[in-house]
Amino acid sequence: MATTRVGIIMNGVTGRMGYRQHLLRSILAIRDQGGVELADGTKLVPDPILVGRNRDRLAEIAAEAGIERFTTDLDEALAGDDEIYFDAQLTSVREEATLKAMAAGKDIYTEKPISESLEGSMRLARAAAEAGVRVGVVHDKLYLPGLLKLKRLVDGDFFGRILSVRGEFGYWVWEGDWQTAQRPSWNYRTADGGGITTDMMCHWNYVLENLFGKILAITARTATHIPERVDEQGNTYQATADDAAYAIIEIEGGIIVSINSSWAVRVHRDELVEFQVDGTEGSAVAGLHGCVVQHRAMTPRPVWNPDEAETERYRDQWAPVPDNATFDNGFKAQWEQFLKARAGEGEHPYDFLAGARGVRLAEAALRSHAEGRRIELEDLTL
Amino acid sequence: MATTRVGIIMNGVTGRMGYRQHLLRSILAIRDQGGVELADGTKLVPDPILVGRNRDRLAEIAAEAGIERFTTDLDEALAGDDEIYFDAQLTSVREEATLKAMAAGKDIYTEKPISESLEGSMRLARAAAEAGVRVGVVHDKLYLPGLLKLKRLVDGDFFGRILSVRGEFGYWVWEGDWQTAQRPSWNYRTADGGGITTDMMCHWNYVLENLFGKILAITARTATHIPERVDEQGNTYQATADDAAYAIIEIEGGIIVSINSSWAVRVHRDELVEFQVDGTEGSAVAGLHGCVVQHRAMTPRPVWNPDEAETERYRDQWAPVPDNATFDNGFKAQWEQFLKARAGEGEHPYDFLAGARGVRLAEAALRSHAEGRRIELEDLTL
Amino acid sequence: MATTRVGIIMNGVTGRMGYRQHLLRSILAIRDQGGVELADGTKLVPDPILVGRNRDRLAEIAAEAGIERFTTDLDEALAGDDEIYFDAQLTSVREEATLKAMAAGKDIYTEKPISESLEGSMRLARAAAEAGVRVGVVHDKLYLPGLLKLKRLVDGDFFGRILSVRGEFGYWVWEGDWQTAQRPSWNYRTADGGGITTDMMCHWNYVLENLFGKILAITARTATHIPERVDEQGNTYQATADDAAYAIIEIEGGIIVSINSSWAVRVHRDELVEFQVDGTEGSAVAGLHGCVVQHRAMTPRPVWNPDEAETERYRDQWAPVPDNATFDNGFKAQWEQFLKARAGEGEHPYDFLAGARGVRLAEAALRSHAEGRRIELEDLTL
Amino acid sequence: MATTRVGIIMNGVTGRMGYRQHLLRSILAIRDQGGVELADGTKLVPDPILVGRNRDRLAEIAAEAGIERFTTDLDEALAGDDEIYFDAQLTSVREEATLKAMAAGKDIYTEKPISESLEGSMRLARAAAEAGVRVGVVHDKLYLPGLLKLKRLVDGDFFGRILSVRGEFGYWVWEGDWQTAQRPSWNYRTADGGGITTDMMCHWNYVLENLFGKILAITARTATHIPERVDEQGNTYQATADDAAYAIIEIEGGIIVSINSSWAVRVHRDELVEFQVDGTEGSAVAGLHGCVVQHRAMTPRPVWNPDEAETERYRDQWAPVPDNATFDNGFKAQWEQFLKARAGEGEHPYDFLAGARGVRLAEAALRSHAEGRRIELEDLTL
Repeated sequence: MATTRVGIIMNGVTGRMGYRQHLLRSILAIRDQGGVELADGTKLVPDPILVGRNRDRLAEIAAEAGIERFTTDLDEALAGDDEIYFDAQLTSVREEATLKAMAAGKDIYTEKPISESLEGSMRLARAAAEAGVRVGVVHDKLYLPGLLKLKRLVDGDFFGRILSVRGEFGYWVWEGDWQTAQRPSWNYRTADGGGITTDMMCHWNYVLENLFGKILAITARTATHIPERVDEQGNTYQATADDAAYAIIEIEGGIIVSINSSWAVRVHRDELVEFQVDGTEGSAVAGLHGCVVQHRAMTPRPVWNPDEAETERYRDQWAPVPDNATFDNGFKAQWEQFLKARAGEGEHPYDFLAGARGVRLAEAALRSHAEGRRIELEDLTL
Repeated sequence: MATTRVGIIMNGVTGRMGYRQHLLRSILAIRDQGGVELADGTKLVPDPILVGRNRDRLAEIAAEAGIERFTTDLDEALAGDDEIYFDAQLTSVREEATLKAMAAGKDIYTEKPISESLEGSMRLARAAAEAGVRVGVVHDKLYLPGLLKLKRLVDGDFFGRILSVRGEFGYWVWEGDWQTAQRPSWNYRTADGGGITTDMMCHWNYVLENLFGKILAITARTATHIPERVDEQGNTYQATADDAAYAIIEIEGGIIVSINSSWAVRVHRDELVEFQVDGTEGSAVAGLHGCVVQHRAMTPRPVWNPDEAETERYRDQWAPVPDNATFDNGFKAQWEQFLKARAGEGEHPYDFLAGARGVRLAEAALRSHAEGRRIELEDLTL
Repeated sequence: MATTRVGIIMNGVTGRMGYRQHLLRSILAIRDQGGVELADGTKLVPDPILVGRNRDRLAEIAAEAGIERFTTDLDEALAGDDEIYFDAQLTSVREEATLKAMAAGKDIYTEKPISESLEGSMRLARAAAEAGVRVGVVHDKLYLPGLLKLKRLVDGDFFGRILSVRGEFGYWVWEGDWQTAQRPSWNYRTADGGGITTDMMCHWNYVLENLFGKILAITARTATHIPERVDEQGNTYQATADDAAYAIIEIEGGIIVSINSSWAVRVHRDELVEFQVDGTEGSAVAGLHGCVVQHRAMTPRPVWNPDEAETERYRDQWAPVPDNATFDNGFKAQWEQFLKARAGEGEHPYDFLAGARGVRLAEAALRSHAEGRRIELEDLTL
Repeated sequence: MATTRVGIIMNGVTGRMGYRQHLLRSILAIRDQGGVELADGTKLVPDPILVGRNRDRLAEIAAEAGIERFTTDLDEALAGDDEIYFDAQLTSVREEATLKAMAAGKDIYTEKPISESLEGSMRLARAAAEAGVRVGVVHDKLYLPGLLKLKRLVDGDFFGRILSVRGEFGYWVWEGDWQTAQRPSWNYRTADGGGITTDMMCHWNYVLENLFGKILAITARTATHIPERVDEQGNTYQATADDAAYAIIEIEGGIIVSINSSWAVRVHRDELVEFQVDGTEGSAVAGLHGCVVQHRAMTPRPVWNPDEAETERYRDQWAPVPDNATFDNGFKAQWEQFLKARAGEGEHPYDFLAGARGVRLAEAALRSHAEGRRIELEDLTL
């Protein structure tokens, strides 16, 4: 069977996300399975070159993974004939490196947020259009079983007219004094690009627009519930970034989304993030993995008798949506879709404009908080 | 044992709430138990006179309840020597009747909303001050086991510094075509005083201010998710009032409240309404009857690995708060507290100003929606 | 409140069905609740006169029930001014008595089968048309919770296009030797009007045509699985009537019904009778009381691997349909509907033609068996 | 220990059934366990040569399985000295290849249906008789635990006189649009040999005749419930073959079988196929793996009170039949029985006439539907 090598410059794989999700569980997994198979039987086999700042760590990773090529010099890597540049660096240095890669004619596949600002995001989108390169931005949550099932329900018109969406994301991130924090301290500093609004709105944007439709407006309050934390070195620091965001988002068709994101909330749910979708014909509650439904035919008729103890077991009145398919790792699945689309097979619509819309939603949320008003979102065009 | 008769003019007991909660389960229950006992052993025994417009229905109720006095003439009733005027009429006629009762020197005990407008509410508050009468406004939810436990937790400083509150209220009210609606059609018509915002914000106001502190601001979006319904006679009608309200409320001390109220949502909770309270030391989830907690010492340390199926059973990591007491019917408990306070024993702080603050929150929510901005609330004074 | 007396001649209430279901649980229950209320508040109060052959038993029943009027002379009863004649006698004597009652100008309410033959049924239908009397035939199963929920699902278009129905009815009727039989021996003798086909096809006819549509054809095999039984007196007798019927029924729209009725089957179901309905959008399994559904969104994707033990728990993948209403006794509910319709309020479409279609289906089933072929059903007209 | 090599020409092992059940789980499993042991200790060791049309796929399978011999030329294979010809090709090409193999003197072991027509099946039977070769036709379901237990019950005279059998087979095969189909599209096209009647009646024939006795007649209705489907390439196509068959089968001794097969039914059973057998002494419900019984002594005495909710838990009144043995894979068990019988040890009665009776039942079912009548089955003789 014919195979085609696809050279991929992987920048930022020394970080947790880049290493675990993109290198190990995506690129190496694809290589180990013999590549991505096209309709004509050709297999696209990724051939990564690792780029980073820490030579020792790079060498270690390369050895473990059986990769021969690595370098600390991005320019050197870009001068080669590898076709794709992948970026999983800190957000603050992503825009510059990505512009450089496009200037070198590379196709781009990158983590989100694609830039620290909407302005920078649009710069990237315009540069990609000028350079004529293909771009993919990570939308990993869309590929997870729970949201795939939610999409299946939307596609199968399970909900009838969709009325509302409730999203709850969060968990208790320890302050770092009594028990160590399970997130890096830069997440809590504005100067380092931290803040839950910036982090999560990019996700909610693509989840909402791909599942339910175009986002029209947002009203939000953010908060820094825990103002003082202890960092990786045991030093106390001021949390300057927001650690919670309470938002009301409006989607075309009159859909109202109430979505809360918080690193200062305890979890009384089945999963760390859950979405409840209510429609005229039925409702669903989906996490990233599970999904349950209550069709109109199964819907009870509660009567509001506040003085009497509840006897209904409401949660038992929902039924699980079966898998009915095998779900691959979400990051890997998107990599495969991107590689295939690059080879002319199928679509991969998640480009810099999609990435820019995510950054825009985060900016609008912060502005809504600052100005105490609802922000309407205009269309983004090049 | 000495007993003291307390004459109570009960207006509006032909309605479901007035009849079931106030007459049957409060006043008659108090009468049947021999009255409310004061510290000196004296018993206050309520002696109701029923007032309403439908003489047949009044006669029927009076006969069933073993009550001798009833009339369709409010003025006649007010001319008597009964000390308390109680009002459970439709909101639209409450203000006028209550003013008349105060003019006759009666103490007031009344359902909420106390008036259709903040302006009217303040008129009532001023009239009460001038007349020097005692006033009680129904705050029944505060007396339910779930919220009593939440109050107990607040009073015991369980939460440390309270950071946020999430409230979810609602259930699926049938449209009336396929299955009959379990709420009256006037609830869905603005002209008849309908709307979930008007109905529920009065409740949320007293719950929040009594549990967590002074309310400073509100940002809200309302919606009419189901625009067409079928009424009690089988006729289709346009729903002009809102059937859902999504609100973010700010309370002193930096507490953020996200609270959704909807008659177009399916229930994936333990109770029809639930509040989650998160604080630095612990969290609680309370319905009207149950309450569970997760103390800091019980708090897990979840790591965000979206690509892996959840293995923690988060809900099992909460522990129930035991009753440790017998909770009486909430309406009856508040009646008893009011009657005692009137007799100089204990406090009953839920007066017309409290009622006015409830109406004010509802008005502010509607204004926030209309103007697309956050509304700050000024102090209300006479 | 105005009340109107409705005189009802009840013939055959000494039998189990007539006594328990029609007299005790319907007519007396209606009387005890004050009658059937019309829209204008008028109450129709039934006033029964009992007719039967056993004077002592009649007297006993009348005394127990607080009924003053009873007689063994049907003609005497028909000569009075009672408006309705009700018949729950043995099928073999029903036609004659009913014709007589119509001749006396009485409205008719009767058990099924309305006659022993289709010919006799049509005679009744024509006589009713000529006499201009109102007729009701018992369709009690339609009023039971399970089938009401199934009807609700059909009305709410839960199934999409309905494809097929599977019905299983039956239980083990003891032979009478080792353990006593729980059905009367005449059920097993053709000469006495016995046979499960004759008994049950009348029910299946109205269930199927009211839930799913017009019946077009039937193919059936009957059997007498247990040829010898022991009767109430301990005597062995030959079972000449069929005790099982296996039928395939075709309904308009391409719906295929497979329905088995048997008194010689052991029960491996939740209820003695169950219907499974499958449609493009969802399926339901309903008994007379319960009903569970599996919507398309909950439908698994089994793969046929016969060599591996089953790991799916298919039955757990169905969800119950909630009551969402209070269901009255089915016999009483139909009596009330008939009495109201007679008074000009609402409809009661189950007349002699409906009854005749039931008898026709039973005859067609027997003919299909005898001739070894599918029988198409022509429309019945007067 | 002496071993005897048995050369087996395996044609059609690139298909799912041939590969998985016959090659991997039967022939290779027998080889890996050292062969089939005869009474004298001799071991029959299968030595397969693979035949197929796709050389690459054959090479791949051979490499994986550690098989040296494979060819795309059937004539070449038949010219060798291998003793057995095995056929798991598409039905449409089976007859010709099998005739050729018999002409070459090979013994035959083959999948069912043995031919596309009864006529072709009888040609095969006659050719086998003339050639004097030994023949085995796959009857795999007979070897599965559930049916083995049912056979055990029949042999132990558990049922007394058997009265009736109810069979339900089926599951929801996805249409291919919203969720991909779990069966190949040719199953739904008559021109390609599709249709559930053709597929399943061959199975039901051998199950029924080996468990219960000679089949005398069949009455059936078939249906194409889902007329339009989406194939493996995402193209919509017309389903020309039947996807459901509703049949009533008569077996000697007055046994009536009601058996439904459908690819458009949702599963409310414990297994995808289940048989309920009722006899005078007891009943059983068996799937392919499980089996429960209710003996006469355990049989309840239900009374038909349709107006009261069921309180009996009928399903709990059945008791499981224990394994009391280890059941090998059904396909392998039959291969072993065939190989032993060929070597003169024991019997393997499932020959071409048995296969022909299966085809005959399928043809009779289709004819019964087409002609709207019961079809009696004559004995098949050479």
